[in-house]
This record gives sequence, structure tokens and C-alpha cells, in this order.
Amino acid sequence: MLEFDNLIEFIRTEVNQNLKKIPIPESPKYLYDPIRYSIHAKGKRFRPIIVHLCGKTNGVDSEVLMKISLAVELLHNFTLVHDDIMDNDILRHGKETIHERWDSSTAILAGDGIYTLAQIILNNLPEKITEISRYFNHTTLEICEGQALDKQFENDVNITEDMYIDMINKKTGALLGASAALPLIYNGATKKIIKTFEQFGRCLGKGFQIHDDLLEITANSHTMGKSLGSDILEGKQTILVIKARNQFPDEWISLLNDTNEFELIKKIKDFFNDSGILEETRLIANKFFNASLELLNELEDVNTKNLAQLVKLIEKRTY
Amino acid sequence: MLEFDNLIEFIRTEVNQNLKKIPIPESPKYLYDPIRYSIHAKGKRFRPIIVHLCGKTNGVDSEVLMKISLAVELLHNFTLVHDDIMDNDILRHGKETIHERWDSSTAILAGDGIYTLAQIILNNLPEKITEISRYFNHTTLEICEGQALDKQFENDVNITEDMYIDMINKKTGALLGASAALPLIYNGATKKIIKTFEQFGRCLGKGFQIHDDLLEITANSHTMGKSLGSDILEGKQTILVIKARNQFPDEWISLLNDTNEFELIKKIKDFFNDSGILEETRLIANKFFNASLELLNELEDVNTKNLAQLVKLIEKRTY
Repeated sequence: MLEFDNLIEFIRTEVNQNLKKIPIPESPKYLYDPIRYSIHAKGKRFRPIIVHLCGKTNGVDSEVLMKISLAVELLHNFTLVHDDIMDNDILRHGKETIHERWDSSTAILAGDGIYTLAQIILNNLPEKITEISRYFNHTTLEICEGQALDKQFENDVNITEDMYIDMINKKTGALLGASAALPLIYNGATKKIIKTFEQFGRCLGKGFQIHDDLLEITANSHTMGKSLGSDILEGKQTILVIKARNQFPDEWISLLNDTNEFELIKKIKDFFNDSGILEETRLIANKFFNASLELLNELEDVNTKNLAQLVKLIEKRTY
Repeated sequence: MLEFDNLIEFIRTEVNQNLKKIPIPESPKYLYDPIRYSIHAKGKRFRPIIVHLCGKTNGVDSEVLMKISLAVELLHNFTLVHDDIMDNDILRHGKETIHERWDSSTAILAGDGIYTLAQIILNNLPEKITEISRYFNHTTLEICEGQALDKQFENDVNITEDMYIDMINKKTGALLGASAALPLIYNGATKKIIKTFEQFGRCLGKGFQIHDDLLEITANSHTMGKSLGSDILEGKQTILVIKARNQFPDEWISLLNDTNEFELIKKIKDFFNDSGILEETRLIANKFFNASLELLNELEDVNTKNLAQLVKLIEKRTY
């Protein structure tokens, strides 16, 4: 396990160093200062790690993997910058978001620029640019669809668990799926193998997102680097809220209506815990993590040990 | 001339029909309703027209030209949707802008989706996807730089005419340059020829933008489909403002400070006219239009008659 931890730390450090090496011009400052601020900020780099670990199972060249992983991380970054404006989030990894530190116009343009840089990096791959670019752009469109559903679902009490799973499959699953699939596409793998890697990433992504919804309730806001519980107050339909609404309609409504705002987040947390919703949700996350592990078993002739350990690492993360 | 007018109208109609044929899913409505609204709105389609006319001089296949021209128009569309949020513009071609009809979040996401659709269309070209995609993405980054400069320049009284020309070269010139160059890149033309077409488009673009600044002062707001003069009130540094500031510093400051807001736009218009700034600016626009015509003369063995007529058409437009 120590060896695996060192591997993850090694990849993370390499990715961070390479993110800093992306040539960002000095001027115009209005565009490049916030881009630099965003790209050089901290991050868990799970998506680049998935790219590297999946690519390594099939011996894909390290420099190619670095390019793909930077593009995937920048795509992620671009969506965060724009989503943070849309969701009015003021903190990200413990730092002010771009629209909070500068303003919305700056953040819109910075996001556009970051996404364009991702495309330019992919354009510099030595081969397979067309196939990689096609897959990458379809992934982006699916992420936009996921974000659209997330916004559309806000304050809509008719959203079901299945609709929520479909939404996170697009919003989070698509990019983790792409992180797993792109190195195999580069390698010219069969459609079946590419699909298995993609599904592995999608299941991992769904587990990751539901786990994130749980951390929003159980974690410490200081270690998470952002305020917690705010999604629920803004009417986001997480799986916990959907379960509360369906299983305890009266209690849930009176909890929301009759609690003063200073106590609300604490009371909601207690409610999820006492009602068993927290535990039920944990089981659903586990189901997706297990599904991702089963997909690894379908892959013959490759060593998927590190990928299985990555699933465990993500499953156990506390921030 | 009638034959040329018919040709332009033919291209415009074809482009509009093909814009409507782009498959836009029904759901999620949050994403695709505003995208459809934006793509199906009116537009002069100058950029697609440049693509078709430049491509035709070198016999590039019509279907290829249509794909490139749609991608270029969508890139333009994406920048308008995001710029309209940043500039708080509420009308575009006589229709409410997306952020005005829906809200800013919807408009940010719609812009992202439109740009992604442009990339997907280019990914479906039969050949040369890598070369086209590289050029396209560098164009996008340059347009972002131009928009950044435009925002950075707001209310900065130290902006010079040269800085302004550099800004519009990026913000407007880059995309007209790309519209002219991309068909030639597809055709595998020499670097020299591609550069000449690009410069032709950039000069045309600079003339176009300065002419647009003039129309902001001289045109009828009804035929333009947007409110006029608002750029100046928001502190945009157009070439007219820069000239007024430099040539008539005292008069310009007292005009801005001592006029009540209802009369201001009319008084500014009169000032530009009476001071000769309008005429001086017209000469600068003409200089760029003439430079674009001279570049056409450098192109040997191709019939550039239609392109020369297009320059005249753009030079004479009144809305």
C-alpha cells in the first residue's frame, strides 16, 4: 500500500509540475492572470491520476499520458470556473473562486481560455488527434448537459433518484469515463476494451459524486476548503434530499420550514444521520465503487491492481 | 452586381438552412433551448460568406466549406453570447440576448455548448482535421485575448489608437482572418498563400470593426437591432473616443461632465461630426478596406472578383 501511495503522490507531483509548465503569456493580464491563478491552484488531480494509471495498464507512452491528463484536468478546471459562477460558490480548494476574487466577466473569459488551452494541448499529441478530439468534445457536451440538468433540477421536488443518477453520470461520470478511455483510444484498443474502461470511470465517477454529497454533510468545512451544506440550502437535488423528501415528506417539510437558518444545516445533518438516510446513501455509493471493481475483473491480461487500489482510495477519502 | 448580390443571398440562405439542420437535442431544455434560440436567430453571416468565397477561389468542396463556415459562425455566436453577458447588452439582432431572456447562468452554459458544437462539426471534416483544429483553437485564444483587452481598456484614458487597432485585430480580425484562411489550409495551400488570405481577412475585419464603431454613432438603432451609443457610455475605448480625448481634451471632458444624460448621446454624435473625427475615422476604415483589396492583388492565378465585391459590400453597409 505504501508503494501505491508513493505512486499516487509521484503522479500528482508530476502533474502539478507540468500544469505549471503550460506556457501562459503575461499579457493581457485580464485573461491570463486568472487563468494562471486557477491552473496553479491546488487540486486532488484524480482525473489525471486515472489517465496515467489506465494508460500504464496498456503501456501508453508517458509523455502522451501527460498531455491527455493535462487536457482532462483543464477541462475539469474550466467547468469548475463556470459552475462556480452559476452556483455562486465563493471558495474552491480553500481559495477564492475567480468570480469572487475578480468578477463574473473575468471568470467567464478565463473559463473559455482554459478550455481552449485544453484543446491546444490535445492538438499537440503525436498521433490520433482526430479520434481523441472527437471523444473529448462529446465528453464536454455531455458535461454541459449534466450541468444543465443540475440547474434544471434545482428546487424541483419531482426529481427521482434515477434522474439524479442520470445527471451525475453526465456531470461527473462522463469526465472520469473519458479519463479512463482516452489513453486506450490513443492506444488503438478495441471498442469493447475502450467501453469497459469508460464504464469503469463512469461507475467510479458516480460513486465519487455520491461520496461527495455525503462529505458535504459529514466532513469538516476547513479540510474540504469550502463551505458545506450550501448546495442543499440552494435547492440542489442531491440523493440525500430526494430520499428525505420521499421517505419522510412531512418531517422534511417541517424541518425546512420551521427551523431558523442558523440551526438549519446542523439539524439537516442530524436528520440524515438519525433517519438512516446517510447509511442508505453510503450503500449506494459502495454499489458504484463495487461495480467499477467488477469492470476491472472483465479486463483480461492486464494488471489492474493499481486501479483497484485507486477505487479504494477514492472510496475512503475524507475530504 | 446583381449577380454578386444573388450569390451572397444564395450563400446566406444556404448557411441559414444548414444552421437549422444542426442536430440540437430536445433535452435538457436548460441547455438546448437557448442554444437553438441563438443559432436560429438572424445574422449577417459575413464570416460564412468569407469562408465560401475564399474557398471557391481555390475550388474547395462545397460540403467542406459548409462545415467550416458553420464552425466559424458558431465560434462567433459563442463569443457574442458570452460578450453580451460581460457587456450587459440586452438586444442582439433585434432579439433579447440569452442572459436577458433567461439568465446569466443559462447564457454561460449555452455559450460553452455552442463552442463545443463548433468543435464537433470540425471533427467531422473528411480530412485535415488536425491542421484545421489547431488553427481554429489558436484563433479562439486570440479572440479571448481581444475581448480581454477590450475589457481591460474600459475607462482607461491612456489607451492609444495603436493599442485599439491591436485589440480589434484580435477581437474581430482574427476570426475574419480564420474565415479566409481555413479553406486554404484545408486545400493544403502554401504558407505564403494561407498568410495572404489571413491578412486579407484581418484587414477586412479591422475595417469592419471601425465601420461598426461609426455605425454606432450614425446608424438608426431600429435597423441595427440594438441600442446605439451605449458602448461609449460604458467607457469603451473606440477609435472615436480616443481621438476626441487626444485632439480635444478640454471640450471632451466638459461634454461628458456637463451634459445631462438624456442629451448626451445626441451631443456626442454632433461633436464627432462637427469636429471632423467622424470623417477622420472613416478614412482609417477605408485604409483597411483598401489594404484588404491590395492583398487580393497579390494572389495570382485566382479570380478574386467576388472577394473584392465583398469588401465593397461591407464597406458600404448601413446596418
